Amino acid sequence: MAFRFLPEEVDFFDLFDKQVRHAVDAADHFRDIVSKGILDEQSTQKMRDIEHLGDEVAHEIIDRLNKTFITPFDREDIHSLTKELDDIIDMLNTIVNRMRVYKLTGVDKNLVQFASVINESVHAVERAVNCLRSTKCSGDLHTSCVEINRLENVGDSMRDTVLAELFETSKDAINVIKWKEIYQDAETVLDVCEDVAHVVESIIVKQA
Amino acid sequence: MAFRFLPEEVDFFDLFDKQVRHAVDAADHFRDIVSKGILDEQSTQKMRDIEHLGDEVAHEIIDRLNKTFITPFDREDIHSLTKELDDIIDMLNTIVNRMRVYKLTGVDKNLVQFASVINESVHAVERAVNCLRSTKCSGDLHTSCVEINRLENVGDSMRDTVLAELFETSKDAINVIKWKEIYQDAETVLDVCEDVAHVVESIIVKQA
Amino acid sequence: MAFRFLPEEVDFFDLFDKQVRHAVDAADHFRDIVSKGILDEQSTQKMRDIEHLGDEVAHEIIDRLNKTFITPFDREDIHSLTKELDDIIDMLNTIVNRMRVYKLTGVDKNLVQFASVINESVHAVERAVNCLRSTKCSGDLHTSCVEINRLENVGDSMRDTVLAELFETSKDAINVIKWKEIYQDAETVLDVCEDVAHVVESIIVKQA
Repeated sequence: MAFRFLPEEVDFFDLFDKQVRHAVDAADHFRDIVSKGILDEQSTQKMRDIEHLGDEVAHEIIDRLNKTFITPFDREDIHSLTKELDDIIDMLNTIVNRMRVYKLTGVDKNLVQFASVINESVHAVERAVNCLRSTKCSGDLHTSCVEINRLENVGDSMRDTVLAELFETSKDAINVIKWKEIYQDAETVLDVCEDVAHVVESIIVKQA
Repeated sequence: MAFRFLPEEVDFFDLFDKQVRHAVDAADHFRDIVSKGILDEQSTQKMRDIEHLGDEVAHEIIDRLNKTFITPFDREDIHSLTKELDDIIDMLNTIVNRMRVYKLTGVDKNLVQFASVINESVHAVERAVNCLRSTKCSGDLHTSCVEINRLENVGDSMRDTVLAELFETSKDAINVIKWKEIYQDAETVLDVCEDVAHVVESIIVKQA
Repeated sequence: MAFRFLPEEVDFFDLFDKQVRHAVDAADHFRDIVSKGILDEQSTQKMRDIEHLGDEVAHEIIDRLNKTFITPFDREDIHSLTKELDDIIDMLNTIVNRMRVYKLTGVDKNLVQFASVINESVHAVERAVNCLRSTKCSGDLHTSCVEINRLENVGDSMRDTVLAELFETSKDAINVIKWKEIYQDAETVLDVCEDVAHVVESIIVKQA
């Protein structure tokens, strides 16, 4: 195996900052789409483009990881972090795509609320990831992680309320199938954000 | 990185025994709820409490793993084992929560049967985990793992029978959506128990 | 721990060739079943037998990995590769089993198309895995991986088209529940093939 021994040439922090920016773009665009209730070809294409950009950074990170011997933190943590960030973008793209396939147009107040909580959480994820390179902002990092955990709990109880309402009010089973999937996927985005927070916390603990 | 070089100060075996005890509590409580068919606030809260206690032990294990250099067995196995045990408790809590959201009250004979098989399997998981610290009970450990695998097969065929019955008899699609999810999740608990058995076997093989 | 220091005695390449052959058998048999639209006890039993054979090789790989110190490529890559190959066979067996439980008989043109794309992809997976042992066929290996990625995209858009059609034409919600699951699982097989391609590429990058 031929490893390169100059870790400086690979700045994983820069790559993670880039990847998490795409996640923020995806969350911003998702809130936009959902609050306007318009799912045309242009807006779905934009989401696919963001997903594609995120994918490219993820591949670059894995590729460089495979070629680099010395890394700023544990190899498996780099692997997990890039995978989880990729999952956030993937899930948002999947939801938008599913809504288009299911022809779910119009503004759904529950999904608007989910999109807003997701947006807050992904922004907190960005703050946490940006903090990774500096031991100075470990306080901010902790605050961000606590916030991400809190928003995951908010999402959990939102999903329960929304599903209970859906099953109680909708007599149209096909409609239930569609929205059940959308709401559960929306909640899963918050689970993945929490997974990122766990990886980030685990990186910090090891460097303590 | 600051590692502590005294592995004695972290007794992973004690922590795993503690975590698997919470899994047993969850499985016992699950059987209780299901066989009585009563899902009030008190019984769901009790499941949430067990889940919370299990979560705390899981976090302690990961936290200590991150700070410990020498471990009694492979780091990735410790990671997998605590994650799988956590998943057992999580899944049981999720099922109870879902039943409450779906307002599924009353005794369902199929779910009673699932709860009983799950209960047997989680008790076998406890015996296997308790055996990890001692090479003396490797025979018992093997017996427990064989039993867990057997119960997973039982669960597989139960799920098939029960789903076939559900799709044949129920004309109410919304009812099908609800119970399909509950039965599949119940079977997944047995899958996760089998995953624990695989991790345990893998730990034993490496120490042979 | 007692490691064996003679890596020659374990030929992981042979084992992977064997495992991927079972995946090809599963994909061939799946296309057969689906194109004939006949799901009798004999054809489901044949799929279960293939799954069982695949399982045995997977266990042998993990078992030998746990007992071997020197491996031809990264331990985690061996772990991932065998798990992904196992998942391909598992998923195909699950789909067949689910079709039987749901009493989905007759030829479904969409599923025939899926089975054909899956078949092409698993054959490409076999070519990629067979190439692992020789640096000579790295060109073929790359071609196979590109092909697997292409087929995953084909599957993605097939699933979207097919689901949109299903939700538009079927007024029978229970029918929607059944076919939605089958189509999504079929697409997942192509995702898993793509995961194999990623592991294979990652192995090659590290050996460059």
